[in-house]
Amino acid sequence: MRISIDYTNMLAPACGPHGVTEEELRAEFGRGSEAIRTLRAKRDQIRWRDLPYNQDEIVEKILAVANDVRERAESFVVLGIGGSALGPIAVQQALNHPRWNELPKAKRNGPRLYVEDNVDPERMAALFDVIDPETTVFNVITKSGSTSETMAQLLTVMRTLIDLYGEEHLKDRLIATTDREKGNLIGIAKKYGLTTFYVPEGVGGRFSEMCPVGLLPAAVCGIDIKEMLKGAARMDALCDNDNIEENPALMYALLETIAMKKGANVGVLMPYADSLKYFADWYAQLWAESLGKKKDGLRFGQTPVKALGVTDQHSQVQLYTDGPFDKTVTFLGVEKYRTEFMIPHAVDENPNVAFLSGHTFNELISAERKATAHAVTVSGHMNKTILLPEVNANTIGQLMMLFELATAYAGELLGINAYDQPGVEEGKNMTYALLGKKGYEAKLEEMKDSAERKLV
Amino acid sequence: MRISIDYTNMLAPACGPHGVTEEELRAEFGRGSEAIRTLRAKRDQIRWRDLPYNQDEIVEKILAVANDVRERAESFVVLGIGGSALGPIAVQQALNHPRWNELPKAKRNGPRLYVEDNVDPERMAALFDVIDPETTVFNVITKSGSTSETMAQLLTVMRTLIDLYGEEHLKDRLIATTDREKGNLIGIAKKYGLTTFYVPEGVGGRFSEMCPVGLLPAAVCGIDIKEMLKGAARMDALCDNDNIEENPALMYALLETIAMKKGANVGVLMPYADSLKYFADWYAQLWAESLGKKKDGLRFGQTPVKALGVTDQHSQVQLYTDGPFDKTVTFLGVEKYRTEFMIPHAVDENPNVAFLSGHTFNELISAERKATAHAVTVSGHMNKTILLPEVNANTIGQLMMLFELATAYAGELLGINAYDQPGVEEGKNMTYALLGKKGYEAKLEEMKDSAERKLV
Repeated sequence: MRISIDYTNMLAPACGPHGVTEEELRAEFGRGSEAIRTLRAKRDQIRWRDLPYNQDEIVEKILAVANDVRERAESFVVLGIGGSALGPIAVQQALNHPRWNELPKAKRNGPRLYVEDNVDPERMAALFDVIDPETTVFNVITKSGSTSETMAQLLTVMRTLIDLYGEEHLKDRLIATTDREKGNLIGIAKKYGLTTFYVPEGVGGRFSEMCPVGLLPAAVCGIDIKEMLKGAARMDALCDNDNIEENPALMYALLETIAMKKGANVGVLMPYADSLKYFADWYAQLWAESLGKKKDGLRFGQTPVKALGVTDQHSQVQLYTDGPFDKTVTFLGVEKYRTEFMIPHAVDENPNVAFLSGHTFNELISAERKATAHAVTVSGHMNKTILLPEVNANTIGQLMMLFELATAYAGELLGINAYDQPGVEEGKNMTYALLGKKGYEAKLEEMKDSAERKLV
Repeated sequence: MRISIDYTNMLAPACGPHGVTEEELRAEFGRGSEAIRTLRAKRDQIRWRDLPYNQDEIVEKILAVANDVRERAESFVVLGIGGSALGPIAVQQALNHPRWNELPKAKRNGPRLYVEDNVDPERMAALFDVIDPETTVFNVITKSGSTSETMAQLLTVMRTLIDLYGEEHLKDRLIATTDREKGNLIGIAKKYGLTTFYVPEGVGGRFSEMCPVGLLPAAVCGIDIKEMLKGAARMDALCDNDNIEENPALMYALLETIAMKKGANVGVLMPYADSLKYFADWYAQLWAESLGKKKDGLRFGQTPVKALGVTDQHSQVQLYTDGPFDKTVTFLGVEKYRTEFMIPHAVDENPNVAFLSGHTFNELISAERKATAHAVTVSGHMNKTILLPEVNANTIGQLMMLFELATAYAGELLGINAYDQPGVEEGKNMTYALLGKKGYEAKLEEMKDSAERKLV
């Protein structure tokens, strides 16, 4: 059961003159083959690609810790931001009940999950309105231990737990996921004897879902992480294929990078399933932070846009059809939802309503997806559909690896480094300066407005 | 207490050669003045502008119905999509507890709120896992009564309620918000004697938050809707100012339309407050559906992108700084959050962590907003900041009217009709065809693929 990409509507025969031509595509096949070779040679710099294969022992430890947490915790709180949050949120939403935290305990196969990925004071306070520290286990995730947001949350949680239960019991309620040797968190973890998982060398934040960063929260919520890794392994193998036309990640990357050159600086990801809504957030980080780069005076990067079918048909599709030819749309379709839900008869006297009765919601959402893809195509806009036979742990593993590899291939095709994020340093340093961190005093000078302030 | 826009960083003196110059801005002032006059003349076609002034009687009815619902309902479920959903979600998130539905009844000032704006079968089923029909009141919202998604949900709810309680009791549990005369829903409302609110003439879906569409759900959840309307009235008056430099909505529209001409086909809205997260969704519909238009062979529309500060600093800001000069960023800042939350001392031995202690989360999030605006500016990208003194019913009313009027002005400046959505008809009709609605048989023929199917 594997996911597939239908890219018919990316091509000119389907969507017309703004589409990719067969010639444009074939002209890139040479560079595609080169990208396969380069990525293979880089394998030890992109260790996330090995995660489906080299974690047998770690997975057993994760499952043991997860089982312990599941037995004693009502709530599991992840303190993390960026890649440490987006993967856990996406996987939880994809594979568990849509209203998990609101379900009574008997209907929930694990503790409530909270992923705290902001430092809004109102949200921080609100967390303590809904959890009981007595029955909560926290998992702080930061590779470097220098992420201000996560460390501020950690200080809050540590103070609370130490005051309530004493330093010696911190280890019962706090799990660390961090670098094995470096950084501020590993020191704290050692001092208090915390259960600790490691972010492997060569696995950046946005590529970390398949390591303990993502696997522990998933396992705590009863998700079959072995099956996720199996799905990821399967997709990794498919995307190592030298035959470009049978290599899904490379085809995805080729089509998108060609589309970018043709002016599509916007890339919409539009799942037709609430379960995949936050998958689009995860994708948005991966695509934006990996490909948004400057090099040799040139600027790269396609702005990812998250949409949700059918909801955003009533919000964004007007723009996607009648608006500029500046985007690609990638639909995520689901062939078989986990529930079938009938549209019953109730207004049979009105044929304008009654035509819906007897159909299922499944038929309705699928018809709308196909109809929207058709409308986007006939209006001349490039689009493609990734089809998931079902949403399950295996296909989610496939989907994540597909996007990770598509991003890696796109990085090669654009000739940029997809694994750094130098553009965020300026903001980080200025935050340190504004908070009075030692050594950043001079930085404050830059903040003095050079331009006249304009207010309305 | 009014919101303001700081647009210093939209201009070339602050952000450099990719910014708007003083000359470019002044050159558009003539067209700006024309837009003020046109909009005044259109006033009876844009009746949403009158909503803050002409609803005294309706507001009293809303409050009476809301009070009744508040007394007897544990859950309030909105069935609606697009404008019927995005406004209610945005306002609820802005003004009530971030985890409202999870709070125990005693801490909640009103029933749980569910806004069902999709037809995902899994989500539809999940709703009935968390609500008890016995203590639930439903509010179906569709002006035309021909929105397939909402009508499918309505059929489900009607069947459930009629089977459980009998036709004669439908009126105790279902409220309709629809057109006064036309459409499928008003007929149903009359047949069953439902409490009914009307969507006024000249108020399109995306401009409907300040009519019963948005006001009833807000009032049910204890929000001060009179104060919201007061805020909207205040902003309406400010934005009628002939002095362009004192007219916030017109300045917003001028700056964005000039930016579009300079290549900014992407417009990011990035609130620094979880409470405003879904406000960005509401804005995205307003901006995309109003301005995404084709006319005389030209294509218009800026793609709205929703981001959340500080969260998306770890996801999108790399792209916003190092990526192409193809976007504007609008930050939403909050001067005073409703909670102050300390970052305590707990790791004083490590200065790389301890520098945070003693500050508040409030200081941290504000420092990060300012630092990010600075980083985006020094990297040469246009940005501006809308500052809310506080997030409350009045400032939310202001903010919504600001964006509605900015959208209206932008429509005038671009010379397009901001109030229709012809581009969604194709998809609607094809959905009808796929579901076998009478009269759409021929449409199916178009679906037959003309292009060879490409799969990977």
